[in-house]
Amino acid sequence: MSYLPIKQLLKAATGVDSPVGSTATVKGWVRTKRESKNAVFIALNDGSTIQNIQAVAEAGQLPEVTLKLITTGSCLSITGQIVESQGSGQAIEIKIAEVVIYGTADPEKYPLQPKRHSLEFLREIAHLRPRTNTFSAILRIRHALAFAIHKYFNDHGFFYLNTPIITASDAEGAGEMFRVTTLDAIKPPLTEDGKVDYSQDFFGRETNLTVSGQLEGELGAMALGKIYTFGPTFRAENSNTTRHLAEFWMIEPEMAFYELEDNMNLAEDFVKTVIRYAIQHCADDLAFLDNRLKEEDKTKKKEEQSELGLLEKLQFVINNEFVRLTYTEAIEILISSKPAKKGQFQFEVKWGIDLQSEHERYLVEKHFKKPVILTNYPRAIKAFYMKQDHEPATSPRGEVFGPTVRAMDVLFPGIGEIIGGSQREEDLDKLVARMQEVGIEPEAIWWYLDTRRFGTAPHAGFGLGFERLVLFVTGMGNIRDVIPFPRAPKTAEF
Amino acid sequence: MSYLPIKQLLKAATGVDSPVGSTATVKGWVRTKRESKNAVFIALNDGSTIQNIQAVAEAGQLPEVTLKLITTGSCLSITGQIVESQGSGQAIEIKIAEVVIYGTADPEKYPLQPKRHSLEFLREIAHLRPRTNTFSAILRIRHALAFAIHKYFNDHGFFYLNTPIITASDAEGAGEMFRVTTLDAIKPPLTEDGKVDYSQDFFGRETNLTVSGQLEGELGAMALGKIYTFGPTFRAENSNTTRHLAEFWMIEPEMAFYELEDNMNLAEDFVKTVIRYAIQHCADDLAFLDNRLKEEDKTKKKEEQSELGLLEKLQFVINNEFVRLTYTEAIEILISSKPAKKGQFQFEVKWGIDLQSEHERYLVEKHFKKPVILTNYPRAIKAFYMKQDHEPATSPRGEVFGPTVRAMDVLFPGIGEIIGGSQREEDLDKLVARMQEVGIEPEAIWWYLDTRRFGTAPHAGFGLGFERLVLFVTGMGNIRDVIPFPRAPKTAEF
Repeated sequence: MSYLPIKQLLKAATGVDSPVGSTATVKGWVRTKRESKNAVFIALNDGSTIQNIQAVAEAGQLPEVTLKLITTGSCLSITGQIVESQGSGQAIEIKIAEVVIYGTADPEKYPLQPKRHSLEFLREIAHLRPRTNTFSAILRIRHALAFAIHKYFNDHGFFYLNTPIITASDAEGAGEMFRVTTLDAIKPPLTEDGKVDYSQDFFGRETNLTVSGQLEGELGAMALGKIYTFGPTFRAENSNTTRHLAEFWMIEPEMAFYELEDNMNLAEDFVKTVIRYAIQHCADDLAFLDNRLKEEDKTKKKEEQSELGLLEKLQFVINNEFVRLTYTEAIEILISSKPAKKGQFQFEVKWGIDLQSEHERYLVEKHFKKPVILTNYPRAIKAFYMKQDHEPATSPRGEVFGPTVRAMDVLFPGIGEIIGGSQREEDLDKLVARMQEVGIEPEAIWWYLDTRRFGTAPHAGFGLGFERLVLFVTGMGNIRDVIPFPRAPKTAEF
Repeated sequence: MSYLPIKQLLKAATGVDSPVGSTATVKGWVRTKRESKNAVFIALNDGSTIQNIQAVAEAGQLPEVTLKLITTGSCLSITGQIVESQGSGQAIEIKIAEVVIYGTADPEKYPLQPKRHSLEFLREIAHLRPRTNTFSAILRIRHALAFAIHKYFNDHGFFYLNTPIITASDAEGAGEMFRVTTLDAIKPPLTEDGKVDYSQDFFGRETNLTVSGQLEGELGAMALGKIYTFGPTFRAENSNTTRHLAEFWMIEPEMAFYELEDNMNLAEDFVKTVIRYAIQHCADDLAFLDNRLKEEDKTKKKEEQSELGLLEKLQFVINNEFVRLTYTEAIEILISSKPAKKGQFQFEVKWGIDLQSEHERYLVEKHFKKPVILTNYPRAIKAFYMKQDHEPATSPRGEVFGPTVRAMDVLFPGIGEIIGGSQREEDLDKLVARMQEVGIEPEAIWWYLDTRRFGTAPHAGFGLGFERLVLFVTGMGNIRDVIPFPRAPKTAEF
């Protein structure tokens, strides 16, 4: 093996122990080849960094037959002396002494030529797009964010809990689910009354892919104190949007003894810390994407251009305290807002509605110009397990609205809801009553209710859609571009 | 919130900044309550550590009605002064000034009473077993191992790649798969020739749960250089054993430019490093499990007792170089072994067989008494994507066996195969020829073959079953006891 990752080599060149003068081997894929009268210049990339290393051969040094095979996408091992670079933009380059061609890439057939490809086209070749600057940058940032998440929770005394992917419970009712089965697809066994006989299925019952690990997460928190999940979740919703995936990764921390305010403090500190980590560890990749967005903006009309660059936006989030207010206060602000008065909102604002993206974005981007945490939502629009507030919401004028729950949603510019969470109802009777109101059979999740039967405690948690976070940090516009192999309606290639 | 995790409090007590004399609040679940003539002693555990903190009240201090509700499993918040402990076994205790009962646990109904419960019984109440010492220890160790894995790869320049869970490819043929569908379960749409019309299914084709992320992992490695996966994988095998789960977590690193020996070096360093991490970070929990095994051994016949204690076994693995030899050499050793000569192996040993557990254990536990890496297996018993050796295997006497591939299996004492990997066939023609031999349609994984069409390179990788690792490190005997909510035939509760 004995080769040097390009990232390591370039980093060494900036240190006291410069590799200049030494002989090294680098291996990677050709991004571009350029020939001048005196020399051949090859830009080689190995994926360790967005930076290429320039390899140089004298004109005539390499046999024509070799030179011809060195094209964009071909894979090379190059050995030679590290020298100070003559050109600008790089400190060092490698003087080719020996080159081995591992693999060619016929320019007539290789889809990734050194030109601008549309994101739509690259989605069609998702197996190759990590070889582009944009997607390798996204995937390195995705890695850094994932690691930052594990590190944050580990540093703060949380335990990683792998909740089940295949589940027999649909208690959350969070959406349509994918069925998991090994029964005969055409003629499944039926019961006497003509239903599918799931007792003969692999698990002896009907099973689906999980939509959330929260309920099992709560079991963990009520034993280990603080846990988090980080795994795939699934929604069989037939929505072809830039914000939805059928398969996506969720992070769900759950903490015994945390109340709503603790939950908000954690969510804010958590998301700032992982974004700060990305800024510190992915400077090159973020600079590339920042520039990419600026270039893209130049092709847009002035009013559609971003107010903030990508890096400015990230700095903005980590340097500002998130604004915290109740749903009821937010409704008051929205009702008195210019767009409401001018009839510019598509959906009418009144207490009790589920806030739409236009409302969330007005609050975050126009009114507060900061990330916002909304709390104490109407009970009717939130999940059964959220802790009920003692008093119903009232307006400043004394109007009494309906009952509320200790929910919290964190809203980000451009993204809307990035985190949703709540304090959980720890009172068995209230929880069961609420389940019955919304039509969930308590017996179906007897094990969940056991946490309230035995040693119940105040507790809270939240969920963060990982791809939403990656979308925010990379500044990309379509969620299918921030996961390696997206799954969506009619889309399961690779 | 403002409470101190018990782990933090106990750790502070061993440092220079002792909390003795200060007032603190601890929150957790009662493990035991003991009353003497002069005092009440409550052992409280919050899951942050296996250690309890002892809380003490004077006799008569707490009202009878309160005292009666403080039973095993109940959840309390206790505030009081931290004092030096009078008893042995702990440095500090808390003098109860105030106690809040968050949740009771009726001793008539709460299944976890302070006595020894069988592992079988605890599997039935997997939602509560993390509240026991054994399972909380296992889950904390599981967390530490998961974190160590992410840290290892991050430290070594690997990128975490989330390969898809729902997949349309069954190229690996690694076993039976779970179908994922949203079609009507009773009357699915059919094509004209009476087959299920999967074009009407959610993804427009037949889809299953992944058995491995390797093929997609290779796509990542051929762009980013070094990647790893760490996610759930699935096998719909109807096997009710102590070693198999239908849903389990796999770690699959894949490295461009690595050959077989690099792969072995990585696997050995990786597994030693994560075990070392667990030893360093889970001393209390490992000591508890070590002791648990010793107690269990006392009930066994001498010949069934473990030769090494748990901690000794872990030290043994990290302090010994793994023995490396070829499959062909291993067969020679097995053929000349005592058990073979005495006819004690259940399965006959000859070149070409898939080694059985009894053979692997003989090599690791009897012959070498060290972890073993076997390489260069017969091509016929390994997957199509493994790199073919140039020459067929020969015996020391010059016998010529069949063709081999650059596979490697890492064998551990008590566990057998813990890691399986290989260098991959990077030559398109050889790969396609092998696929056709074993009946895999190249067109089905055209995207995989593109890595060999365009810029191919030597590369290698391996897979580690996470639960196998946790089984080894915790010394548990049943894989269902090292994952929070096991999935197996007829088993999908919680």
